Amino acid sequence: MRIAVDAMGGDNAPEEIIAGALQSLKDYEDIHIELFGDREKMAPYLEDHDRLTVTHCSEVIGPDDEPVRAVRRKKDASMVKMAEAVKEGRADACVSAGNTGALMAAGLFIVGRIQGIERPALAPTLPTLGGEGFVLLDVGANAEAKPSHLVQYAIMGSIYAEKVRGIRNPRVGLLNIGTEEGKGNDLTKAAFEELKMAPLNFVGNVEARDLLTGTADVAVTDGFTGNMVLKTIEGTAAGLFSMLKDVFASSLKSKISAALVKDELRGLKHQMDYTEYGGAGLFGLNSPVIKAHGSSNANALKNAIRQARTMAEHRVTDTIRETIVEEEA
Amino acid sequence: MRIAVDAMGGDNAPEEIIAGALQSLKDYEDIHIELFGDREKMAPYLEDHDRLTVTHCSEVIGPDDEPVRAVRRKKDASMVKMAEAVKEGRADACVSAGNTGALMAAGLFIVGRIQGIERPALAPTLPTLGGEGFVLLDVGANAEAKPSHLVQYAIMGSIYAEKVRGIRNPRVGLLNIGTEEGKGNDLTKAAFEELKMAPLNFVGNVEARDLLTGTADVAVTDGFTGNMVLKTIEGTAAGLFSMLKDVFASSLKSKISAALVKDELRGLKHQMDYTEYGGAGLFGLNSPVIKAHGSSNANALKNAIRQARTMAEHRVTDTIRETIVEEEA
Repeated sequence: MRIAVDAMGGDNAPEEIIAGALQSLKDYEDIHIELFGDREKMAPYLEDHDRLTVTHCSEVIGPDDEPVRAVRRKKDASMVKMAEAVKEGRADACVSAGNTGALMAAGLFIVGRIQGIERPALAPTLPTLGGEGFVLLDVGANAEAKPSHLVQYAIMGSIYAEKVRGIRNPRVGLLNIGTEEGKGNDLTKAAFEELKMAPLNFVGNVEARDLLTGTADVAVTDGFTGNMVLKTIEGTAAGLFSMLKDVFASSLKSKISAALVKDELRGLKHQMDYTEYGGAGLFGLNSPVIKAHGSSNANALKNAIRQARTMAEHRVTDTIRETIVEEEA
Repeated sequence: MRIAVDAMGGDNAPEEIIAGALQSLKDYEDIHIELFGDREKMAPYLEDHDRLTVTHCSEVIGPDDEPVRAVRRKKDASMVKMAEAVKEGRADACVSAGNTGALMAAGLFIVGRIQGIERPALAPTLPTLGGEGFVLLDVGANAEAKPSHLVQYAIMGSIYAEKVRGIRNPRVGLLNIGTEEGKGNDLTKAAFEELKMAPLNFVGNVEARDLLTGTADVAVTDGFTGNMVLKTIEGTAAGLFSMLKDVFASSLKSKISAALVKDELRGLKHQMDYTEYGGAGLFGLNSPVIKAHGSSNANALKNAIRQARTMAEHRVTDTIRETIVEEEA
């Protein structure tokens, strides 16, 4: 299996990206990695490996680049070349920690949408208290959504949860502001009706406050709401950890206290760290495209590569394609 | 000043509601409280007080009652009678910890909307790390919103932040999925343009992850998104506190650690407890209507009464009315 990796994307590129790629080559003997990036900048971190290819690219898409324009104009950008490798069948999946909007544009314009999929969706797996995690989609591939899009998100999320996360008959919930049927805005009310009819284990409306307790394996919502929920979880967790840090630094007594539970607290932070589940999948494209978190370190990148590998291995894209065709028939 | 209180609403009614009311009478010598509820159930907790009136009501609206129907049919419900006291000028403001939907219906049908206000908004004040707090609205009075509604929410929130929370020239942000102008869905894009023109200290788009760091004093959004963000903050905070509790209970060492920072941890939980800021105001009605949290204890109820008193004292309703009239002129 061949995985294309954008070595120049993310806050810690290329060092941590390359380290994550090299670690993946050690962990998985069945993968070949092709790194795309500036050869000179990558050189200090590269190692020779018989399953590693390096392709030089003269350009990089930065975090502030306007996504669509950057993908169209920077023809020799590492992210563009990575997507082309997938498009042309030289790679089975790709991973980038770079500009999210640009990766979505590269996915849409270069890798291409599965026929029948109306909109791709960005789908991270987020932590739950029990450690199972849940797939949330869409978190921002499209700010607006129609009920039929939510049904397709549900199908794609369900296939992913089953094939990659190993959950049998995943429980699909519609993210809403109340659990009763008939709750919500025009979109969720209409989507509820369509989801009931779809070939899914639809468990009805789920509320945002129950997501962390594992109320659903897959939660579907429009990209605006999903992005809002994702960033609220991030902001609240970061805020609480920062307050906790202050508590533990406030006195000698509290410093002793902190020393006593240091490992456990690190474990807690680890448990809330959703890069452990890999990156966010861009579902609905012709091949697996994984968006690793912008702040990815080597370990997060490795998890994203593992995820890309599992998606390719379990033919997630093909299954989505076949299911959508059946749905339409 | 006269404040009407629904003694039967909330998980801890009537005991904690009455305790909160009695405490308020001690704290504020300028208020008179009228309690509405079942005299027999209230009796064990009542004390004689020259500024306390008790009005017997034979019915109660429960948490599972269908809001509009309950308000229309249960004519002798404590919440309905409370709202009527305000409507008829026998009280200057009212407070209930009961069924949120029913309180919104009672507010709309009995207390009535300020002329010119298109939609009322439910507006809690949420905690920030620095302790200043921010007003979030709408969190669910209306699932759908138009751009003009968001402008009215912003005006109401801004007046409240200035008059009640004492913030000069409050910073008003539009809750969105990116800070750059032009981000978001159709609603936020259109609302952005209208907010720029409004007589407000509009600071542009704000992201959910920055709310807790105090990026705005007032954040406006549609009721669906606001409710989602509110419940995500609640769920994430509750989840993390529960994980923290497990960490501290996991071993003898961790129990010792917990004992060392017990007070500080309680302080942290207290800081995240938004009932400290009072209840959620139902803005846009002819008189102040405060929704105290359903799980309110005496202290939370007291804070909600304090808030009702401050809203009445600073003529928040009149200021909203005058500002809306000017806006339309």
